[in-house]
Amino acid sequence: MDEAAKKEALRLFTYGLYAITTGDEQRWNAFTANWLSQVSFDPPLVALSVENTSTSLPIVRQSRRFAVNVLTAEQRELAGRLGKPYARSPQKLEGLQMGTSETGCPVLLETAAWVECAVEGEMPAGDSTLVLARVVDARVLRAEETLTMRAAGFKHAG
Amino acid sequence: MDEAAKKEALRLFTYGLYAITTGDEQRWNAFTANWLSQVSFDPPLVALSVENTSTSLPIVRQSRRFAVNVLTAEQRELAGRLGKPYARSPQKLEGLQMGTSETGCPVLLETAAWVECAVEGEMPAGDSTLVLARVVDARVLRAEETLTMRAAGFKHAG
Repeated sequence: MDEAAKKEALRLFTYGLYAITTGDEQRWNAFTANWLSQVSFDPPLVALSVENTSTSLPIVRQSRRFAVNVLTAEQRELAGRLGKPYARSPQKLEGLQMGTSETGCPVLLETAAWVECAVEGEMPAGDSTLVLARVVDARVLRAEETLTMRAAGFKHAG
Repeated sequence: MDEAAKKEALRLFTYGLYAITTGDEQRWNAFTANWLSQVSFDPPLVALSVENTSTSLPIVRQSRRFAVNVLTAEQRELAGRLGKPYARSPQKLEGLQMGTSETGCPVLLETAAWVECAVEGEMPAGDSTLVLARVVDARVLRAEETLTMRAAGFKHAG
């Protein structure tokens, strides 16, 4: 396989940019993600790829909940900030407007929308874990233009 | 859950538009997909949601191969055409420029790029099946602007 062609072709895929929030009474975390997709209408399911070394993966597994917060076109800086690993940037949540869903799942209050998901299963996927989750609640906060990988100039693919 | 909010929030997710090709000596098929994502760098893995009622799902399972063909911004009509179920539109491949990868997987020759994938596993996902596959070959044909769901005005989410 031509590694350069592989990288270039995979970077032609289109992605949005999202902040994933997860947590329980003990701890909250948030991280930037682009490798996610709706995967079923009925029931509504979402699949999310989470790096195996991520601080959030054990929190997702324990709380069985996460929210997909859809970033607006103006939130490129926030995407960069939340994209830093928690271990190197433990203050990354400071100053963020956060709330909770009815079930207590942390959500961001200044994004375009949030979609709360309840974990249904997972599948090992190389350096990551593919988490399958059912949509259980959603709120549109600001129906604004959303942030894409292309517009942000990020390159998390390839 | 507020069904309207759920639909609106899920439609704020960003997707590209792809033609998935699959087949063996007996038969080839192609269908339009947007619910897919890279999910691992090492090894390079892709996850693709395929409707359980799709003509192509048994072909993917048997051949263990498919290609993700990245549509260009000009291929909206092709996306619409390949989005029709094979059962209702058995002629939908006619006239398409198709070739094969080195291993014999059908690919489209007039898209931006193709990424050949070898199936590694699957997970039931509601009305669909989430297929996990390893990237085994790729070719960039035309590094042009690619087609997005938003630009096409399609709404396969919600």
